[in-house]
Amino acid sequence: MKSISIKIYVAVVGGGEAEKGILESAFEVGREIANHGAVLICGGLGGVMQAAAQGASEAGGITIGILPGPDRQGANSFLTYTLVTNLGHARNIVIAHSADGMIAVDGSYGTISEAAIALKLGKPVVGLSTEWNLSLMLNASSPKEAVAIVLEEIAKRAFLQPA
Amino acid sequence: MKSISIKIYVAVVGGGEAEKGILESAFEVGREIANHGAVLICGGLGGVMQAAAQGASEAGGITIGILPGPDRQGANSFLTYTLVTNLGHARNIVIAHSADGMIAVDGSYGTISEAAIALKLGKPVVGLSTEWNLSLMLNASSPKEAVAIVLEEIAKRAFLQPA
Amino acid sequence: MKSISIKIYVAVVGGGEAEKGILESAFEVGREIANHGAVLICGGLGGVMQAAAQGASEAGGITIGILPGPDRQGANSFLTYTLVTNLGHARNIVIAHSADGMIAVDGSYGTISEAAIALKLGKPVVGLSTEWNLSLMLNASSPKEAVAIVLEEIAKRAFLQPA
Amino acid sequence: MKSISIKIYVAVVGGGEAEKGILESAFEVGREIANHGAVLICGGLGGVMQAAAQGASEAGGITIGILPGPDRQGANSFLTYTLVTNLGHARNIVIAHSADGMIAVDGSYGTISEAAIALKLGKPVVGLSTEWNLSLMLNASSPKEAVAIVLEEIAKRAFLQPA
Repeated sequence: MKSISIKIYVAVVGGGEAEKGILESAFEVGREIANHGAVLICGGLGGVMQAAAQGASEAGGITIGILPGPDRQGANSFLTYTLVTNLGHARNIVIAHSADGMIAVDGSYGTISEAAIALKLGKPVVGLSTEWNLSLMLNASSPKEAVAIVLEEIAKRAFLQPA
Repeated sequence: MKSISIKIYVAVVGGGEAEKGILESAFEVGREIANHGAVLICGGLGGVMQAAAQGASEAGGITIGILPGPDRQGANSFLTYTLVTNLGHARNIVIAHSADGMIAVDGSYGTISEAAIALKLGKPVVGLSTEWNLSLMLNASSPKEAVAIVLEEIAKRAFLQPA
Repeated sequence: MKSISIKIYVAVVGGGEAEKGILESAFEVGREIANHGAVLICGGLGGVMQAAAQGASEAGGITIGILPGPDRQGANSFLTYTLVTNLGHARNIVIAHSADGMIAVDGSYGTISEAAIALKLGKPVVGLSTEWNLSLMLNASSPKEAVAIVLEEIAKRAFLQPA
Repeated sequence: MKSISIKIYVAVVGGGEAEKGILESAFEVGREIANHGAVLICGGLGGVMQAAAQGASEAGGITIGILPGPDRQGANSFLTYTLVTNLGHARNIVIAHSADGMIAVDGSYGTISEAAIALKLGKPVVGLSTEWNLSLMLNASSPKEAVAIVLEEIAKRAFLQPA
């Protein structure tokens, strides 16, 4: 009945442009998230965001894009729902607050900002193919492992919270 | 295929507390929105936001709450999906950008700020039982009429836009 | 010593374009604010924002522009300091939070959103030549009176606050 | 005449709590910024933010605090001007946009998010006593050097910009 209490939101963050191998990883991350019944949140644009959304979407999952611009232009085609923030990079903070956990696939400064805020908020962040690292960030060697770790960590923290 | 191009987002805005008659109107507005297949967006808290979400939810519709605080506390129980902004009143601007059209039910300063920005962005705003008015705001005498007007205005503007 | 405890911040809000008479009023409002030693806050662009900043600046006052875009382009030439938000209309909320009181000169939807949030935050808002009105908003018949009212109301509320 | 075109804004970012040695470094960074006539921007709270503001303030400089909360509570005593954003961590993005260059002193996740966005915006970021690093971030071995580097880099980029 109280749908909000059982949905798990996993953010997938990464560059708006990326190489083929990275995009394939992001696609698989998205698919895994959908296969586990979690909602995928992303920044709504191209590259890693699009590949992850496509993976989740093709697996029948729900994807939500939190867009940086003033309207829906530039949104990729694999988003079930889109929110329009017009906040530019500050929409990264909205993603970090909205996610129960985060998977960073490759990525650069924008991705780092999202991971940093998510860690500051006490949320699990798993890096996949990232050339950077942050303390407390966990690392995975495959898309499947990345999703497994983030969901396990989310469950642990939920268990520790007072009801 | 491109799911984003055919979804219509209607925001319902109004006070976090309201009298019974207002809440009944908000409930009916939500139900009508769902019956027309549009996605309901709201601020995610109580009062008008909750009543509208309940109306939509019980009619099988999708409801998205855009929350002002740092986490999901205070979210009402009738939201299919929740976004967490931690932006306080600035989340009102996110609602205005995300909505294709807006229905204001009663409401006070916060509601006025949302309606004002939506109008500035060129979106249709319909007032129902509002004691205030803004130029270009349309007024409805029933929930059914409010939803009919906002959907008609959204369709008009979409038609006028270049493909 | 504690400079922050004695500075008074007055926001002047209004349209980015306005008629000559309105701009003259805004200029005088700015000058009066400076003459009373208060800091003028505005949205940093043209029209009423520029005229008020010019009035304050030429009277030797301090003016702070809170800009909506991603950089300082479009900032008027009469700002002592500029902050760059890239938040679009959400910067209106930053203005409302930053101001101890607000004077709206003419203006339309954007101005109304600022006034509405300032009122919601319990701050005095004085309208000058506004064609719209909000409950609790005070009205002035001259720039001098507008500044006198807003400063008096700010002082009253400060007096009522616990030390 | 156009005061905005000649002011240089340098952000000092770092933790809200820090060890004595770090605070002394931040103090010296602030003093150097003021001695070079630049405006210091910071997050307005304690720790590194306060120490840097104190250093600049005692050297006669201008300091601007961009606060995360809904009012001026928690602002340190060494701020010439304060802006109130109520944006939480999203105010970090406002700092990055407002600064021409940034010096990170120690710091953790919040600081990293600010540095990452500043780098993404193409601005010079200098790290001092940071245990983390980001590509393109410059490193300094003393407060004096940190300020020298950031000002030199700001000047270089300004020179390269079209008039």
